[in-house]
Amino acid sequence: MYTTRIYYQDTDAGGVVYFANYLKFFEKSWFRHLLSIGISIPDWERDGTYVIVKTVSLDITEKLFYGDEIAVETSVSEVRNSYFVLDHKVSKNNKTTARGRTTMVCIDAKGKPKRIPEDFRARLMSSSP
Amino acid sequence: MYTTRIYYQDTDAGGVVYFANYLKFFEKSWFRHLLSIGISIPDWERDGTYVIVKTVSLDITEKLFYGDEIAVETSVSEVRNSYFVLDHKVSKNNKTTARGRTTMVCIDAKGKPKRIPEDFRARLMSSSP
Amino acid sequence: MYTTRIYYQDTDAGGVVYFANYLKFFEKSWFRHLLSIGISIPDWERDGTYVIVKTVSLDITEKLFYGDEIAVETSVSEVRNSYFVLDHKVSKNNKTTARGRTTMVCIDAKGKPKRIPEDFRARLMSSSP
Amino acid sequence: MYTTRIYYQDTDAGGVVYFANYLKFFEKSWFRHLLSIGISIPDWERDGTYVIVKTVSLDITEKLFYGDEIAVETSVSEVRNSYFVLDHKVSKNNKTTARGRTTMVCIDAKGKPKRIPEDFRARLMSSSP
Repeated sequence: MYTTRIYYQDTDAGGVVYFANYLKFFEKSWFRHLLSIGISIPDWERDGTYVIVKTVSLDITEKLFYGDEIAVETSVSEVRNSYFVLDHKVSKNNKTTARGRTTMVCIDAKGKPKRIPEDFRARLMSSSP
Repeated sequence: MYTTRIYYQDTDAGGVVYFANYLKFFEKSWFRHLLSIGISIPDWERDGTYVIVKTVSLDITEKLFYGDEIAVETSVSEVRNSYFVLDHKVSKNNKTTARGRTTMVCIDAKGKPKRIPEDFRARLMSSSP
Repeated sequence: MYTTRIYYQDTDAGGVVYFANYLKFFEKSWFRHLLSIGISIPDWERDGTYVIVKTVSLDITEKLFYGDEIAVETSVSEVRNSYFVLDHKVSKNNKTTARGRTTMVCIDAKGKPKRIPEDFRARLMSSSP
Repeated sequence: MYTTRIYYQDTDAGGVVYFANYLKFFEKSWFRHLLSIGISIPDWERDGTYVIVKTVSLDITEKLFYGDEIAVETSVSEVRNSYFVLDHKVSKNNKTTARGRTTMVCIDAKGKPKRIPEDFRARLMSSSP
């Protein structure tokens, strides 16, 4: 789980979190969730496995304001040969304010899709419902 | 249509455009598209009509690199009572590299959804297929 | 003190932290430092005192990479009638990698510079060397 | 010269351009200025010469708001063995609203400072006062 305040850098002149910045919250949350199940993306990169985002969806249901304290939770919802799907939930005071989903593709150093390495996959599976 | 180079600020350490930054391209493209059909969002704000993003989807099919020249095109795909839907297409050398969709809700100064004002709606409709 | 990992969102295609993003680290660090001495900027805003940045300086001495764990420390270096100066230090493994300074001006709701409120000033002074 | 509107993505909840985003305007402006004097940074990178930012200074004298049309101008103010200095000026309606300076260091693919290549230097010098 990733918790943060909302800072000025996250907001826009509408007074709320700028929509694109939710995706930055998602990245921080998935980095930490994967690390918590034993997957360090920087370490895998040194071994030649890179993870890129192919698709994103986002649904904002409540606004977030400067100074708010939020939590972002990521879960693994699907694991395939060369990609996996993550769900992200943003909440404030235990109320969900936004949801998102990202499809993550494993690629090699040349940018070609590759099979998710076995240890990587096993850890994803163990965390998947 | 919005055209731009890819700058360092758009990229990440993977060497390509950071996924969240596509949404920033979309914002610049829709701002310009709406302006081209006679809708100035800053002017409407001064009249008490604000436009916020509720949902986003994004699909990245080709990578974009530092220095690339891209074009982003926005079109109106749906107009409802209090929201409208925009489609966005990113291309390089006339080849599509990413697509996205955003649902835009009209709200008043207090943040409540409101009917899209008539002139605003008429201009959206005239631009819709 | 603000500690964070370096995420993709902080980096650029050069493989290191994008220079402008240091200023975002500074904001998170000063927000927390001020809070730790009893100054909540969001609360002061509700009372009509806003804090804006007028000048910035930044000196990057070591690169930072994806996955790095860093600490950012902010200290108050000067307090004047309507502005104060903050120093920021970024470090990795207890080694300084960048330094910065920001001049912060107090303004009212109309954007006019105003005297730093007494309680605000007293807390800054108590934290100043 | 780089001209742009101010978009939501450039602003914060204070209603003005977020201070760190000035540095992003500077990057776009120097990229274009260098290109206009025959220096393509992406091309030089393919030849093994990279340009990184070492120091930055910024002074904001007037606020910028959503929808504003601005111009950013970059000029070469100093050229040394392995670094050069750029000045940046932001203006709205021909009135300067912010100024900045960046020190740019030439490095090789391993990140070591290197002498500015002769052709690169000659072009900088020709553009320098």
